[in-house]
Amino acid sequence: MAEAVWSDGAAYINGRFMPIAEAAIPITDWGYRRSDVTYDVVSVWGGAFFRLDDHIQRFRRSMNALRLSPPEDDDAIRRVLTECVRRSGLREAYVAMDCLRGTPKPGLPRHPANCGNYLAAYAIPFVWVMSLEMQARGAHLIVAKTPRIPDDSVDPKVKNFHWGDLTRGLFEAQERGADNCVMLDREGYVTEGPGFNVFSVTGGAVATSDHGSLEGVTRLSVQELCAEFGIPFAIRKLPVAELREADEIFLATTAGGIMPASRLDDRILGNDRPGPISSRLREAFWAKRAEGWHATPINYA
Amino acid sequence: MAEAVWSDGAAYINGRFMPIAEAAIPITDWGYRRSDVTYDVVSVWGGAFFRLDDHIQRFRRSMNALRLSPPEDDDAIRRVLTECVRRSGLREAYVAMDCLRGTPKPGLPRHPANCGNYLAAYAIPFVWVMSLEMQARGAHLIVAKTPRIPDDSVDPKVKNFHWGDLTRGLFEAQERGADNCVMLDREGYVTEGPGFNVFSVTGGAVATSDHGSLEGVTRLSVQELCAEFGIPFAIRKLPVAELREADEIFLATTAGGIMPASRLDDRILGNDRPGPISSRLREAFWAKRAEGWHATPINYA
Repeated sequence: MAEAVWSDGAAYINGRFMPIAEAAIPITDWGYRRSDVTYDVVSVWGGAFFRLDDHIQRFRRSMNALRLSPPEDDDAIRRVLTECVRRSGLREAYVAMDCLRGTPKPGLPRHPANCGNYLAAYAIPFVWVMSLEMQARGAHLIVAKTPRIPDDSVDPKVKNFHWGDLTRGLFEAQERGADNCVMLDREGYVTEGPGFNVFSVTGGAVATSDHGSLEGVTRLSVQELCAEFGIPFAIRKLPVAELREADEIFLATTAGGIMPASRLDDRILGNDRPGPISSRLREAFWAKRAEGWHATPINYA
Repeated sequence: MAEAVWSDGAAYINGRFMPIAEAAIPITDWGYRRSDVTYDVVSVWGGAFFRLDDHIQRFRRSMNALRLSPPEDDDAIRRVLTECVRRSGLREAYVAMDCLRGTPKPGLPRHPANCGNYLAAYAIPFVWVMSLEMQARGAHLIVAKTPRIPDDSVDPKVKNFHWGDLTRGLFEAQERGADNCVMLDREGYVTEGPGFNVFSVTGGAVATSDHGSLEGVTRLSVQELCAEFGIPFAIRKLPVAELREADEIFLATTAGGIMPASRLDDRILGNDRPGPISSRLREAFWAKRAEGWHATPINYA
């Protein structure tokens, strides 16, 4: 094994910091073996967290929904995330926080209520779910045939690793020569894609799905930018037919920001390039971040 | 950390053997972060594997379905599992085999097709999903309100860690003072429980669900025992109303064998004890295993 170095990333697991190469989950942990875990991801850009409290608050809501309770309170989580970034020295980072179920305590019945939950976190170099080249030409998307896991089986508002349907969608995209996919529910409404919210732009108005999807923090940024620019914005049921006929489509995620699409199945949008509203939102998003929008600077000393 | 000892269990990860306490999955691995993994579990009893080839064949089918391909062929997997048991010295063991997606290879797009898949395995002391005391009195079950993840989103025949719905069912069971739960599909048909197939006995005939559930290897043993005893056996759609009116209910899994139930929601079956057919099947199952049924003895030397 290569020597572990902090600049590749820094991690924290249940009380201890370590280089990312050493960060691992016990193979018997229910966080892995039952995917009984929730997580969140916050970005660091120019040496500052973006919307740190929004992410920690959503993470806490997710933990509460799954009855997960690590020893660390929100302030301690904030300190752990900061220390991971500080140790890595990274100015642009992808910072994950996980809360795992653990394993049943000795002598107690094998039930998730009887486990010691714990926090894991790490900072690694910033991850782009779509490359900058792909964002510049616009993503090529398909509508996946695999239906999204329904909300009443696994709540998509609680960020989770149940990616079986999304992974199938990614293989469908590859088979059809596309970059990525949009997932539908069983009634033909748009939900989300693998790790991002999906937006349509029609007649100058932006819309995104109200179910089957995460309440994205980048989605919230899109909403704020639309308000600033006077662009109508709605979170509502989004029929796939409306997405197919949209003037523009874009995607949003922490690991990539606002990402325009230029194709959906056989349809080419605009001139096979990112649309004007998508591009305006994307440019404003990064310009405002460079100016310190929702930023929490990190002390690297 | 306590000193790692082989008798607590022995593991293998991607080419290397280690004590179970050292066996861990990288926190960035998609096998954990996207639950992009399949697995199987075979039991060892009296120093012999039970139905080893059936488990390895199902594991290979699961890997193929997810397009996972580890370096090890089926013979190599058999040798790895045997070596894990041999190193542990365990005569009764729970032996797991996982195939994980891994992470994208450097320089390639972040797509599951571009990852190095690998095998992990371990042998630990035998696990009872229900204690022997619970099996003797019969399990107390509820019908969970959380619906099972549908087959077209995540295929339940491909053994997976997408346990979000099952974990919710387990919390429902705890709230209602029960031991465990039965999951239904969206049309009110029985699927399975957390880690086991569910069987009804009505008028002397045994039935179990044909969808929403794993093709259990212990289910296959139940089928063989029924054939031997002249008990009608069917794999078909099983309405919850039929389960509620059944003469008997029992469960089957590698980590526990054939396990009778004595209650379902407010209903007490029989005299609040395991029923006669369930008990006969359970006793025959263990008696035949003691006689070497489907056994592959392990050379511990």
